[in-house]
Amino acid sequence: MKLARACAPGVNGGAPFWALVGEGQKLLPIAGSFNEWGPALTRAIAAGQADAGRAALPLTGQNCPLDAVRLLPPVEPVNRVVVAGANYAKHLADDFGLKSPPQPVAFLKAYGALIGANDPIRYPPLTRELDHEVELVVVVGDTPSGTDPLAAVLGYAVGNDVSARDLQRSGPPGIGMDLFAAKSQDKTTGVGPWIVTRDEFPQGSPKLRLTLKVNGETRQDGHTSEMTWDVAQLVTFVQMRSSFAPGDILFTGSPAGVGQGTGRFLNPGDVVEAGVEGIGTITNIVGPRADA
Amino acid sequence: MKLARACAPGVNGGAPFWALVGEGQKLLPIAGSFNEWGPALTRAIAAGQADAGRAALPLTGQNCPLDAVRLLPPVEPVNRVVVAGANYAKHLADDFGLKSPPQPVAFLKAYGALIGANDPIRYPPLTRELDHEVELVVVVGDTPSGTDPLAAVLGYAVGNDVSARDLQRSGPPGIGMDLFAAKSQDKTTGVGPWIVTRDEFPQGSPKLRLTLKVNGETRQDGHTSEMTWDVAQLVTFVQMRSSFAPGDILFTGSPAGVGQGTGRFLNPGDVVEAGVEGIGTITNIVGPRADA
Repeated sequence: MKLARACAPGVNGGAPFWALVGEGQKLLPIAGSFNEWGPALTRAIAAGQADAGRAALPLTGQNCPLDAVRLLPPVEPVNRVVVAGANYAKHLADDFGLKSPPQPVAFLKAYGALIGANDPIRYPPLTRELDHEVELVVVVGDTPSGTDPLAAVLGYAVGNDVSARDLQRSGPPGIGMDLFAAKSQDKTTGVGPWIVTRDEFPQGSPKLRLTLKVNGETRQDGHTSEMTWDVAQLVTFVQMRSSFAPGDILFTGSPAGVGQGTGRFLNPGDVVEAGVEGIGTITNIVGPRADA
Repeated sequence: MKLARACAPGVNGGAPFWALVGEGQKLLPIAGSFNEWGPALTRAIAAGQADAGRAALPLTGQNCPLDAVRLLPPVEPVNRVVVAGANYAKHLADDFGLKSPPQPVAFLKAYGALIGANDPIRYPPLTRELDHEVELVVVVGDTPSGTDPLAAVLGYAVGNDVSARDLQRSGPPGIGMDLFAAKSQDKTTGVGPWIVTRDEFPQGSPKLRLTLKVNGETRQDGHTSEMTWDVAQLVTFVQMRSSFAPGDILFTGSPAGVGQGTGRFLNPGDVVEAGVEGIGTITNIVGPRADA
């Protein structure tokens, strides 16, 4: 099943709401916050009872067409955005000249950095090297346990972890990359268009093609099977350092082909399409430079 | 005035609440979330009308003694915890052998890392070098503007940015310190005991002594006047990279004297007292090692 977070005039008083994406491009709004139904749905899916979990969703009965809403990032402001990157060896080698580290590189991204599936990418004033990173995004729906970390995964979304490379490289010697300035800039990181639940994919870490196009030209074309650490390993890695809460999301790193390696960064007006096989595509247009 | 966040059986149904700390160690609970009164109070203080701001607080009329509550971190789960560190040259030189960088080092700390003024410090299982860092914590109460960043500051609290040094140093070459594993471990970072509002201090960045004792022995004894970047500069620095929301808190770096420099790390049972002049003291006892 597909689960979206959206807002629309006349639905839920204009406030963000969750919805099941139904037949005929209709959204069926779900009552309440993620915590009121997300963990139960995640547990139903883990138990092989996705249909029962879906039937138990507290739908409000009010439907609306998908094209009448603004799709929002499928994560609530109270939740965390974690990135566990450095997960594609060719990206590190080609784009940064780095060897794969012995473990993932994890950090937090500000919620305010997120945008929805069709929102514009803000071009932050401090950078001149705005870059793209298509990623598989994991939606954690329940508290992970050591024995089966994937049981805590509700599903997957598409992310574009837009990064300010000049700021990323500007971190001081001995301290390291400035991932905060690079990756937490307001309204830059696309996530969406919805969550596709885990029962829609074969068991195990998903094996999916990732693509990113700029103005129709393919810039990244990778596959999650290239990941150094799979989804279960990443969830466990983060959980051991800082616990997930239901509704948190996890970016899982980007394959090769970004501007950091090619020198081809994003420009105002660029149409950026990030897609993951079996999930969908987010299309975000780069806005003007603040000083333009 | 002092503003605390607390929970107690029989008050607000046991859920966290904000309160004014009144005469005679009494808490006067405030109705609603920070956003319902915090920005207005911050603007009143910025306008030199702290008394009017205090009078306008929506007190519930139900009082309770301070010693009957658990003090919580004075920040709500929906808010961000930002750290802008590397702000004391002697700490960098003595404790890390580093020169002051050309700008602060900013990153995000997980909300789940926070503990209240008297909660135990969890000893995380992955580390053997748990360390202390007394810091001035800024509570951002309104949206910062470029012209007077301090006008957005509601007040100040005490923080102890407990850090796992072995994990901090384990970050890979070319990427840098692992600040996530070092600083976002569950239930390690004390904040409190309350917010002392900005009108209680002279104008400008506060000039306050910071001390940290372990089992009664002074380990850190510094002063915010040693900061490389003052509070206004730190707020502006972060705001330019990733916008504050009302209620967010900002750690401002720690002075010299931590275990990273002396080799004297925290041990289970240690009583850690972090204090800032004019604000108060938080006292947290280090818990057992997970595998002990």
